[in-house]
Amino acid sequence: MPAQLKVVQMGLGPIGQRLVQYLAQRPFVELVGAIDIDPQKAGRDVGLLSGTRELGVEISADAGQVLQRQAHAVILTTDSSLARIRPQLEECLRAGKSVVSTCEELAYPFEDQPEICSQLDELARQNSVALLGTGVNPGFLMDALPLFLSSVCQQVTRVTVERHQDAAIRRLPFQRKIGAGLSPEEFDAQYRAGHLRHVGFAQSIRLIAHAFGWHLDRVEESVEPVIARGPTASAFIQVAPGQCAGLRQLARGYRRGEALIALELEAYLGHPAPRDTVTIHGQPTLSSTIQGGVDGDIATCAMVINALQALRSARPGLRTMADIPLTHWCGA
Amino acid sequence: MPAQLKVVQMGLGPIGQRLVQYLAQRPFVELVGAIDIDPQKAGRDVGLLSGTRELGVEISADAGQVLQRQAHAVILTTDSSLARIRPQLEECLRAGKSVVSTCEELAYPFEDQPEICSQLDELARQNSVALLGTGVNPGFLMDALPLFLSSVCQQVTRVTVERHQDAAIRRLPFQRKIGAGLSPEEFDAQYRAGHLRHVGFAQSIRLIAHAFGWHLDRVEESVEPVIARGPTASAFIQVAPGQCAGLRQLARGYRRGEALIALELEAYLGHPAPRDTVTIHGQPTLSSTIQGGVDGDIATCAMVINALQALRSARPGLRTMADIPLTHWCGA
Repeated sequence: MPAQLKVVQMGLGPIGQRLVQYLAQRPFVELVGAIDIDPQKAGRDVGLLSGTRELGVEISADAGQVLQRQAHAVILTTDSSLARIRPQLEECLRAGKSVVSTCEELAYPFEDQPEICSQLDELARQNSVALLGTGVNPGFLMDALPLFLSSVCQQVTRVTVERHQDAAIRRLPFQRKIGAGLSPEEFDAQYRAGHLRHVGFAQSIRLIAHAFGWHLDRVEESVEPVIARGPTASAFIQVAPGQCAGLRQLARGYRRGEALIALELEAYLGHPAPRDTVTIHGQPTLSSTIQGGVDGDIATCAMVINALQALRSARPGLRTMADIPLTHWCGA
Repeated sequence: MPAQLKVVQMGLGPIGQRLVQYLAQRPFVELVGAIDIDPQKAGRDVGLLSGTRELGVEISADAGQVLQRQAHAVILTTDSSLARIRPQLEECLRAGKSVVSTCEELAYPFEDQPEICSQLDELARQNSVALLGTGVNPGFLMDALPLFLSSVCQQVTRVTVERHQDAAIRRLPFQRKIGAGLSPEEFDAQYRAGHLRHVGFAQSIRLIAHAFGWHLDRVEESVEPVIARGPTASAFIQVAPGQCAGLRQLARGYRRGEALIALELEAYLGHPAPRDTVTIHGQPTLSSTIQGGVDGDIATCAMVINALQALRSARPGLRTMADIPLTHWCGA
């Protein structure tokens, strides 16, 4: 077995804390540092803050100092905006650390932010480390899984992914993000303000298109509320008939007017038939369904941790799920 | 786009010929040579022999001469026994060619044939090329797909895969291989003679166990006939009630008496509910089903071709599906 992989956790919001819980359970990783800018968290034991056992690792607000420690990789869960995390990424790469981040835009940033990409890619190569954005979505369900399923196809003409979720079982911030409990007018206002929508569809579409060699003309997204017909509720939110139970988000990648890639997220309280379905149309056409769907919070954290090992043997540079070795769980 | 990938096809049985048909349809590959020891085939155009268009590539029985051509990789489909194809593999590697083979034993040969593995691994590294055994099974459904699905799991305790096939739609050799149309006594005799069984289960189990870091005590396999209750038939074979319609094969990998990995193949004429189901038991437990199942003949050939690109950026040596970059279809 290779030696334990030393990891620094950067960002201790809900996802960062769950990652710490999960890291503490995995034999192949050792948490050697924890960074958060919140002065309330500095000095505390990261395990205790995160709801697991004392880990003997003190949270620090001084990233520069923590990054001097010997470590293979940083897990970065500070922000969804690549532009905003760019200085943090640069600091990690300069310190010779590989990075796995849940930043959705990092999953496939080459077309939207080519300059940042070139610079990060070069910096990673110079320091012989690799950089990856992943999670459950983007990172798995709507991009890497359809790609991998296409391995057994001689021809692919079209890809569709449907993620249907009962949002009642998710965390409150997720339920808020899909507009549960809002009136249709509030939904509309919050949507216009940019608060209601899953980020990552465009990244998933572009990752698939790139890997397949498809040159898309455009990517379009739309969001609409799912209106409750009867009363519905989660542990946190009551929804009256006529209010929003959640949302339906569609994204499509077009070539010459044809939607080659179609992604659909239905996430609302009380969805009667949650499932994740990937359909590859081609030779052969095949459709894969995970009944009940994949739990997004567990899956994102697990994906990040499981990607650490693959990243260790990936080529240096800014990588995607399509060009690192196959990721998988490891119990050792 | 990277330049076209030049490929030599070695072995022109049914699978080799189908590969030639498929290669002729794929823009990213160029077939530059074809090898078969059958003197009846030598000198013929490999495209015409394989039921596709004339490809301008003459079949040769002289492997040494064909392997002098500039090519990236050889697709080797000559035999299921690693010991028997060993000299062919060595010849390809010495000629500086990467190899993808449908040889089932090559999918994970490290435990059963460690000496051959060390020698092939070293030879591949010396020549800066890579060597991979893959196909639909082993290579995808019962090993790489469960591994990849486990990427979103924080814990895995057990893996089961069920492949249920209606063999009536498969090729005659496949129907023969599962014993369709035999009496139970004939089935038993042919099974004892080693004719009736799918090779590759042990390889799939060992590949999963290795990637998961599970040390298994033993791997057990069993085969039993599926007896037709009513008359059933394919285009080739009539089965009377009481005769064998096909088989059920089980393989299990045990640790301390517990079956951690359980693979089941049911393949018989008239199977009412064909499907491929992978279940990862853990946190979360998830079960993925491809209704109708994956067509084995198409999938094996597609997998081999789609693996060529991943192999180009894999590290040199004897590789497995668990340590090459994610495989996927490519239309460019």
